[in-house]
Amino acid sequence: MGSLVYYFGDGSADGKADMRNLLGGKGANLAEMTRLGLPVPPGFTVTTEICTYFYQNDKQYPEALKSDVAAALKKMEKSVGAEFGSSENPLLVSVRSGARVSMPGMMDTILNLGLNDATVKGLAAQSGDERFAFDAYRRFIQMYADVVLEVPSYQFETVLTRCRREAGVQTDAELSAATLKKIVAEFKDIVSNVQHRPFPESVEDQLWGAMGAVFGSWMSNRAKSYRRINSIPEDWGTAVNVQAMVFGNMGNDCATGVAFTRDPSTGEKRFFGEFLPNAQGEDVVAGIRTPQPINAETAGKSSLPTMEKEFPKVYAELVQTYQKLEKHYRDMQDIEFTVQKNKLYLLQTRTGKRTASAAVRIAVDMVNEKLISEKEAILRINPQQVEQLLHPRLDPRAPKEVIAKGLAASPGAASGEVVFSSEDAEKRSHEGVAVILVRHETSPEDIAGMDAAKGVLTALGGLTSHAAVVARGMGRPCVAGCGELEIDYGRQIFTVGGITVKSGDQLTIDGATGEVFLGHVPTINSQVDEYFGKLMKWVDGYRRMGVRANAETPNDVRVARQFGAEGVGLCRTEHMFFGENRISAMREMILAMNKEDREIALAKLFPMQKEDFREIFRAMKGFPVTIRLLDPPLHEFLPHEGGIEELASTLKVSTEVLKARIRALKENNPMLGHRGCRLAISYPEIYEMQARAIVEAAAELHLGDRYEIQPEIMIPFVSSVEELRQIKKSLIAVCDRVLAEKGVKLDYSIGTMIEIPRAALLADEIASEAEFFSFGTNDLTQMSLGLSRDDAGSFLPRYVDLRIFAADPFVSLDQSGVGQLVQMGLEKGRSTNPKLKAGICGEHGGDPQSIAFCQKVGLDYVSCSPFRVPVARLAAAQAALR
Amino acid sequence: MGSLVYYFGDGSADGKADMRNLLGGKGANLAEMTRLGLPVPPGFTVTTEICTYFYQNDKQYPEALKSDVAAALKKMEKSVGAEFGSSENPLLVSVRSGARVSMPGMMDTILNLGLNDATVKGLAAQSGDERFAFDAYRRFIQMYADVVLEVPSYQFETVLTRCRREAGVQTDAELSAATLKKIVAEFKDIVSNVQHRPFPESVEDQLWGAMGAVFGSWMSNRAKSYRRINSIPEDWGTAVNVQAMVFGNMGNDCATGVAFTRDPSTGEKRFFGEFLPNAQGEDVVAGIRTPQPINAETAGKSSLPTMEKEFPKVYAELVQTYQKLEKHYRDMQDIEFTVQKNKLYLLQTRTGKRTASAAVRIAVDMVNEKLISEKEAILRINPQQVEQLLHPRLDPRAPKEVIAKGLAASPGAASGEVVFSSEDAEKRSHEGVAVILVRHETSPEDIAGMDAAKGVLTALGGLTSHAAVVARGMGRPCVAGCGELEIDYGRQIFTVGGITVKSGDQLTIDGATGEVFLGHVPTINSQVDEYFGKLMKWVDGYRRMGVRANAETPNDVRVARQFGAEGVGLCRTEHMFFGENRISAMREMILAMNKEDREIALAKLFPMQKEDFREIFRAMKGFPVTIRLLDPPLHEFLPHEGGIEELASTLKVSTEVLKARIRALKENNPMLGHRGCRLAISYPEIYEMQARAIVEAAAELHLGDRYEIQPEIMIPFVSSVEELRQIKKSLIAVCDRVLAEKGVKLDYSIGTMIEIPRAALLADEIASEAEFFSFGTNDLTQMSLGLSRDDAGSFLPRYVDLRIFAADPFVSLDQSGVGQLVQMGLEKGRSTNPKLKAGICGEHGGDPQSIAFCQKVGLDYVSCSPFRVPVARLAAAQAALR
Repeated sequence: MGSLVYYFGDGSADGKADMRNLLGGKGANLAEMTRLGLPVPPGFTVTTEICTYFYQNDKQYPEALKSDVAAALKKMEKSVGAEFGSSENPLLVSVRSGARVSMPGMMDTILNLGLNDATVKGLAAQSGDERFAFDAYRRFIQMYADVVLEVPSYQFETVLTRCRREAGVQTDAELSAATLKKIVAEFKDIVSNVQHRPFPESVEDQLWGAMGAVFGSWMSNRAKSYRRINSIPEDWGTAVNVQAMVFGNMGNDCATGVAFTRDPSTGEKRFFGEFLPNAQGEDVVAGIRTPQPINAETAGKSSLPTMEKEFPKVYAELVQTYQKLEKHYRDMQDIEFTVQKNKLYLLQTRTGKRTASAAVRIAVDMVNEKLISEKEAILRINPQQVEQLLHPRLDPRAPKEVIAKGLAASPGAASGEVVFSSEDAEKRSHEGVAVILVRHETSPEDIAGMDAAKGVLTALGGLTSHAAVVARGMGRPCVAGCGELEIDYGRQIFTVGGITVKSGDQLTIDGATGEVFLGHVPTINSQVDEYFGKLMKWVDGYRRMGVRANAETPNDVRVARQFGAEGVGLCRTEHMFFGENRISAMREMILAMNKEDREIALAKLFPMQKEDFREIFRAMKGFPVTIRLLDPPLHEFLPHEGGIEELASTLKVSTEVLKARIRALKENNPMLGHRGCRLAISYPEIYEMQARAIVEAAAELHLGDRYEIQPEIMIPFVSSVEELRQIKKSLIAVCDRVLAEKGVKLDYSIGTMIEIPRAALLADEIASEAEFFSFGTNDLTQMSLGLSRDDAGSFLPRYVDLRIFAADPFVSLDQSGVGQLVQMGLEKGRSTNPKLKAGICGEHGGDPQSIAFCQKVGLDYVSCSPFRVPVARLAAAQAALR
Repeated sequence: MGSLVYYFGDGSADGKADMRNLLGGKGANLAEMTRLGLPVPPGFTVTTEICTYFYQNDKQYPEALKSDVAAALKKMEKSVGAEFGSSENPLLVSVRSGARVSMPGMMDTILNLGLNDATVKGLAAQSGDERFAFDAYRRFIQMYADVVLEVPSYQFETVLTRCRREAGVQTDAELSAATLKKIVAEFKDIVSNVQHRPFPESVEDQLWGAMGAVFGSWMSNRAKSYRRINSIPEDWGTAVNVQAMVFGNMGNDCATGVAFTRDPSTGEKRFFGEFLPNAQGEDVVAGIRTPQPINAETAGKSSLPTMEKEFPKVYAELVQTYQKLEKHYRDMQDIEFTVQKNKLYLLQTRTGKRTASAAVRIAVDMVNEKLISEKEAILRINPQQVEQLLHPRLDPRAPKEVIAKGLAASPGAASGEVVFSSEDAEKRSHEGVAVILVRHETSPEDIAGMDAAKGVLTALGGLTSHAAVVARGMGRPCVAGCGELEIDYGRQIFTVGGITVKSGDQLTIDGATGEVFLGHVPTINSQVDEYFGKLMKWVDGYRRMGVRANAETPNDVRVARQFGAEGVGLCRTEHMFFGENRISAMREMILAMNKEDREIALAKLFPMQKEDFREIFRAMKGFPVTIRLLDPPLHEFLPHEGGIEELASTLKVSTEVLKARIRALKENNPMLGHRGCRLAISYPEIYEMQARAIVEAAAELHLGDRYEIQPEIMIPFVSSVEELRQIKKSLIAVCDRVLAEKGVKLDYSIGTMIEIPRAALLADEIASEAEFFSFGTNDLTQMSLGLSRDDAGSFLPRYVDLRIFAADPFVSLDQSGVGQLVQMGLEKGRSTNPKLKAGICGEHGGDPQSIAFCQKVGLDYVSCSPFRVPVARLAAAQAALR
């Protein structure tokens, strides 16, 4: 372990920006800003290594930490010209967490630390404002008691409410110094009653308590939950930043605010921010008071006075500062500042969170501004986030009733049932219901509920409130600060303009306009903008792997093509059998007692299949289409409870016979049952019909429109080369007969899914009979991990929480386990068939981390759902660049 | 390809005994006997390579075969002094199949080939017996038409029946030459009517037709079925043996018979056989006439005249011959002979099939006679067969009613429902019902039915009949030749001594005594004899791997110990939860809504678990006991249809609540669901209770009886080292607390099943937390092959038939697929934990081929069901010796 404590202040710092792993993002940037000569209050950072040490050593610190902290404090005292714990000129500090990546609102912060019954007098004397000093003191006690001592906050609120009533005032700001003194005394009584010991008077005890609480909060449930959602490793740990206090609430020549160097919502190049005069830092972020715009550009239709007008000199300094910061960091910055008696202080800078479209626009603009390179632009976009660009927006022609309008906090449209708590959001969403989470405001406890909801609507808070920041990060549409809403959690309703909306009612929000609509408003596909088009053009120049789509309806195939899919990687033919006319022929086929009857039913399905394939080939003109032959067990096509009588009469069999057949087809573990190519071993005529439909459709298009079509016929669920050999032989016979009849030469190929572990283990044998492999990582994951996706809901989340699995293996490929099989299958396959084409067609084909893995092991392409195609293209380029 | 045809005759031969792969067993031994100077009719063998060529070349033969066969025929003609196709002195031949291993009754045989309207006159003249000549001719036509031309046999039988009636005689033997001539004409008419061309007059056409039929029969369904049951590869092929005819039916100085050099049923050293005077070869084996004993030793209580008495000179020669053969081959021989006009001919010798106890006794005796070594004795016993030695026999004290007595054809006792066809045997057995197959006689078509039945009872046939030979080979108890039985297939009944037994009635047979009992007679465990004890002692001296048992009831554990198990390899604790008192506490535990209620229910189970473990430890005193903690998904313990109301009232919950809970626990693929150690991640208290019960039981026995007990606690269904690490930590805490409380030092170890593919792939990580591995190859097979054992019945047999899988992977380990994971798991595991103890506890632990694999990859032990322990010990020794 190196230094334990990194000091910054007065233009020099022990740390710098590239030390974020050690100092956390906040600490590294405070050091960097100090080095840049920006006005940063002095302070020091306790490293993330101490956090790791803390958890590995039963919550103890290394020996040397005590003296190192004391030394750093001494330097701060010297810089500020005040003394920690002094009753005459006390140094006050803030204690903040700062992890490697920004985790907004997740870690606890303590302000005004260093106040006690003696030092508060010094603060009063120094500031010349006793009211201010005692207000700072009561805030400190309340915050410290809540975060460090775990004394429930409502007890303090009860006292404040009573005192306001007794004083006949509306806000805490109107309370007198005398009242505040009384409140401080009452607060301390509350603490000693709950804790059975007095509130700590020793400023050192205060400091170490606060540091312990910051480290402790790293393992809080909400921090764990955030890390899980964002795939942040637990062992990164957090740093602690101790910094001299500056005050934005010392009078009307004080203020505090946050700003973005470009518009985080659209990416437009304009300085953008909010501030509150005479307020302490957290007041802006918490969203309790509605903040004022910093400048005319931010103001929009707001009539509140801007900082530009109220603090013109400080504002000018702020503009210079933001320009310096953006140029230095070469990215859009999110900055926090405080104005104390007309002097500007920078408290934080960090890379600003932004919407997907803002991210794209900023990256493209910065390339044009020659601030960054194309490669940097590509690497800077989070592929996961890109998907939201492509999501549907409200159909402009649909009738809709606007019932309220709030702030356009996170773009995108969403509809769903109204719920009023995160618990309900999670519960209903788990039941498959789309929900809109409606809250007064959100807090870190709501992270999981926000993630579960399709959209978020809040009554309070600005564009930088918790709800807005988190929703943008998650890509959830959000309307914030919709003040007209009167929410009654108790009755589970809200009212607005005389309309009452209750829990369970349908609601639609448009996060791009801030509008709220009653009922479900239909959506249409989004159009991508010029910036996105430019970025994706660069992307395609850098990636090595192809990107295809998993699609089977002609419409999906067309959408996939628009999104840049270079072929269909997985066309699941069984999806075609569920249509009205088809399901009945399918059932007839399944219930046939002999080959002849089965062939009669298959003959009914044949023309429909052929027409499907013809449409898909047309839409994918010039690109390969991989068609997977029938895969699921036959019982999936039969009714389970209702509909048996009806089906029996359609099929002209007795219900008894039908029920017996359904019983006979029932399986204990259908996942591992009579499915995939096992069906073709039992009933070769099924695959033969499908192969004929594929090749006839391709041959006729070739004859008609001279299309160059290369159908890829894919045999699913292969576990043995012999299985593939026998089926392939029968299919080649069928295909070649069709081509001979039509007099067409056509390159079709036959390959297989690698989705059973044995197939990966014996891929060398299998590749000798296969022209291509497509890794079916959904099933491969199920079998390799012994994990049924349908059943894992009851325990898998706990597995991810406990870090037994690093991530949900159905979302992100289990690289160390399943990945071994993919790599082995590919290497073995290429060892016997060097020309083998190989891709992946599980859900993982659209997951950026999994795509990086595919690049690493050398797959030729990935295939994913149409909306994820741009995500995959970007991720593939990033993987190639890394 | 070398020579196509191997000649033998007059004391010299092209082939010899060690060429059985090329010449088949029969051909190699005919050559060897000829070399030994034994009286073998001359002939030649067409090699198995021709069979392979035949199937690889669209049923064509190599060019040179024609001339090679012609040349060999010439040598035969010269040796016999007759001419193939001559109307004066015709050479007649037999055409027989002969595969590498004996496949009794599976391949078709044609006798008297070379007869036509011209040569039959020569045969009449040469034999001086026109009746004999035409009888031979009609037999030939019938046999040839059936086997080569596929003319249904019943048409010929109809003619014979009519002619017997018209002639007023009972048997074919009484038909006159004139009648037989008429019959020959009618037979030829039948053939030309069915075939639309005449019966082949050309003897060359006859010969090539017969050879083609022999090769063709290699791919008959019954041959395939036999190969599947006996794991015989299809590419071995069969040879064809063409040999000069000798006649046992040329008068009363002729005979034909079969004999064993030792008793194939008991192994006793006595010459043992049966013969029929004036009969053709196949009559003995077919079991249609009851044969006569060859000597007094064989006769037993039979009053029929012996060969020893009727043909004393020939018998003496036969005795010399058998002694020479046994000494030469150093094993018990099964020989076929024919006496033509008082001259002895040997037609076949082969290693005789024998019962398991005979195999053991013969091997041990031969070591004592210094004929073979201990190692040879060990390698000679088929481990599969040994199991039958240990199967239960009838309880001598049980009341039982003997209703009939037949021949003791294959030892062992069996009870079951009576069925009258092999189809019914297969069907009922598939439904889980034990059946006894009752037939007039059995034929190769019955192989699968016999395999499915618990025992076989026939009305006809001797100790060397098809039923007897096949049943002995399969280890199925069999009573043959029970002539009192009057079977009516049509009414599905049999009657005996006034008693009527119908299909579905319970019947018991004792294949060691030939007795048949009405109803179900209870059985007791078998005692092994001195020979077996001696053999197993040798066995244990040669094997490297340990052998343990899968057992959980104290009784099973004791049986396992008696059979030589060196510990318990798999004690499945869930089996203990199904008892009357336990299931209700178990259900209470499952339905508990919180940890407290769950712990109350677990506290009820605790004392019972502890008592179970105490009993098992006692029975396995001094040996390790591996206890697998709870494995199946919880819903397996809940009622599915009935019993819900009752359970609800027992548990004092509403049926609605109970049904909802059952629904919630239901899984789509329970095999891949919430089971194994996943339960312990959700509910740590379950495993903690079990661990406490194990260690308390062990500690108390240690304190009480100073037992040295080393419990091995096994965590099932591990897929990640982190899972194991977390559970292990909690179990160690529990165990160490118990030991500290009791003040006992005890070596317990904690290990894991390797049964999920991922666990094998990441065995290096997992071994860092495991003291032992037990490969759970049942589940590993299910997951690696994507094959649910419960559901595979609908297609797996076809997979084996089509050779997609070499064998049923649940019976014999899939070495190329699953085996890779076992080997990888072991190697990776030992790479990080060189002290790792590793065994196998799937069904494969008792399968000899799988055991050989375990030896090869270096496992420390195998574990199997108690009755298979001796099988495994033997197989382990053989694997070590090979």
